[in-house]
Amino acid sequence: MTNLQNFIEVHKERVENLFPEIIESLHCSSPLKKSMLYSLQAGGKRVRPMLLYAVLDSYKIDKSLGDNAAAALEMIHTYSLIHDDLPAMDDDDLRRGKPTNHKVFGEATAILAGDALLTHSFYLIASDDRLSTEVKIEIIKLLSFASGANGMVGGQTADMEAEGKSIDVDSLEKIHTHKTGDLLAVALQIGAAIAGASPKEQDHLYQFGKNIGLSFQIKDDLLDVEGDQEIIGKPVGSDEDNEKNTYVKLLGLNGAKEKLAWHTQLAMDELSGISADTGILKALAQYIGERSQ
Amino acid sequence: MTNLQNFIEVHKERVENLFPEIIESLHCSSPLKKSMLYSLQAGGKRVRPMLLYAVLDSYKIDKSLGDNAAAALEMIHTYSLIHDDLPAMDDDDLRRGKPTNHKVFGEATAILAGDALLTHSFYLIASDDRLSTEVKIEIIKLLSFASGANGMVGGQTADMEAEGKSIDVDSLEKIHTHKTGDLLAVALQIGAAIAGASPKEQDHLYQFGKNIGLSFQIKDDLLDVEGDQEIIGKPVGSDEDNEKNTYVKLLGLNGAKEKLAWHTQLAMDELSGISADTGILKALAQYIGERSQ
Repeated sequence: MTNLQNFIEVHKERVENLFPEIIESLHCSSPLKKSMLYSLQAGGKRVRPMLLYAVLDSYKIDKSLGDNAAAALEMIHTYSLIHDDLPAMDDDDLRRGKPTNHKVFGEATAILAGDALLTHSFYLIASDDRLSTEVKIEIIKLLSFASGANGMVGGQTADMEAEGKSIDVDSLEKIHTHKTGDLLAVALQIGAAIAGASPKEQDHLYQFGKNIGLSFQIKDDLLDVEGDQEIIGKPVGSDEDNEKNTYVKLLGLNGAKEKLAWHTQLAMDELSGISADTGILKALAQYIGERSQ
Repeated sequence: MTNLQNFIEVHKERVENLFPEIIESLHCSSPLKKSMLYSLQAGGKRVRPMLLYAVLDSYKIDKSLGDNAAAALEMIHTYSLIHDDLPAMDDDDLRRGKPTNHKVFGEATAILAGDALLTHSFYLIASDDRLSTEVKIEIIKLLSFASGANGMVGGQTADMEAEGKSIDVDSLEKIHTHKTGDLLAVALQIGAAIAGASPKEQDHLYQFGKNIGLSFQIKDDLLDVEGDQEIIGKPVGSDEDNEKNTYVKLLGLNGAKEKLAWHTQLAMDELSGISADTGILKALAQYIGERSQ
C-alpha cells in the first residue's frame, strides 16, 4: 500500500468516525437524525476533509485540531448533495448507487436534514475548544463565503441557469470554480489557517486548491463518459442525457484531458512555494486527476 | 405616537435598509439575488431584530453594533419561511398576502435562496468588524444552536411529525419552544452578548425570550381564529383546515388567552432582575401579546 493509499484510508475512517457522535449529540427527533446520518454515511471520497488533513500533515500539526472543521466541510458538501438531488433540482433517485435522501425519508425531511447539516457545521466550528477564537472566526468567514451565494450556492444557481444553453469554456470554468472548486479550495485555506501558515503560503495553498478544484470537475466530466458505471455509481453518459454543459462537450475528450493535466501541473507548481513537506498534497493532486470514481 | 410605536418604526426601517446592500454585495447571478431580496422585502414584523435592538437600547449600546446580527436573525427567519412554504412542506401559495418565493422564482431557486440566506447570515457575523472576536464566536454559537437541529429545524421537524396526530399541551409547547421560541430567545441572548450583560442578566433576558416566544405562538394561534384576514394576510381558520395542533385546539379560546397572559407576566417578572432601563422590552412583550397581526 502506498503512502497515499494509507493516508486516505486512515483519514477517511477518521472523519467517518466523527459523524455518529456529532449526530447523536443533537437534541431533535430520531427521523431527522437518521436522515442526516444516512447521507453522511452514504460513502464518498471525503476529498475535502482529506485535503484539510493533508495540509495539517504537511505542517506536522495534530490532526485532532482539524476534526471539527473536517466534519463541517463534509457536512456542508453532504447537505448540498441532498438539496441537489431533490425533485425540484436534479431529481435524482440514486446517489453513489444508493437511494437519495428524499427517496428514503421524503422530501420535507430531506430539505430539513440539509438545512440542519449546514447550520450545525457552523456550530461545530464555533464550539470547537481546541482552536483559538481568531482561527475559528477565520474558518467561519472562509467557509460561509465559499459555500453560500458567493461560492457553492451561487455556482449551483449559475449551473442551473446555464442548463440547456450553449456556453463557452470561460463561463463553464466560472460555474465550476464556484460550484465545486470553492469548497475544495477552502479546505486548503482552513488547513492553512489552523496550521498558522504564512500569508504567502496560505495563498499558494489557495491557488493549489483552485487548480485541483478544476481538475476534479474535469475528471468528473471525463468519468461520466469513460468511467465504469459500477464504480462511479451512476449511469455513464447521464450528463449528456441531462443536457449538461461539460468540459468534454466543449473541449472534446483530448482537450479535456489536456486541460486536466495542465491544472494538475499548475497545482504542483504552487506547492513548490511551500517550505513544509507537501508529499501527501502532491500525491492527492495526482490522485484527483487519475481516480476511477 | 407612543415610544414603542416610534421604536418599532425606526428599527423596522433600520434593519430593512440593510438588506439591499447586503444582497447587492454578493457575487452571484441576478435571479438568486432577486429571489433572496424578494422574501427579505416581503414585509413582516421584524420581531427578532426588534428584540435585539431593544436589548441594546436598554443598555445604551450603539445600535450599529447590532446591525449585522439583526440582519442575520431576519435572514435566518426568512430562509425558514421560504423552505416552510415549499410544496413538499406546507405548500403555501401566499405569505403575508404576497405570492411565496417558489411561486415567483420556481422551487429550485427558492431552495437555493433559502440556503444562501442561511449561509450568508453566518458570514455577516464572522466578517463584522465592529464586534470583538469573542463576541462574534459567542453569537455564532448561539445562533447556529438555536436555528439548527437543536432548535428551529428540530422544532419544524417535530411539528411536521405531529401533524394530524393528537398531542398534549406539553408536547405542543416543546415543539413551539424550538420552532419559534428559540430564534426569538436567541435575539435577546445576542443582544445581551453584544451589550456585555452579566451572566445573571443574560439568563434573565433568555428566560424573558423563552416566555415571549411562547406568548408569540399562542397569539399566532389566537389570530388564526379571531384575526382579521386582511391584516394577518392569510385565511382565518387555516390551521384547523390543515389539522394543525394549536393552543386554541388544545386549551380552548379562554384557556389559550389565560396561558398567553401568564407567559407575558412571567416575561415581565424576568425583567425586574435587570438593572438597565427595560422600558422598550416591557412594551414589546405587551405588544406581542396584543398585536392584531
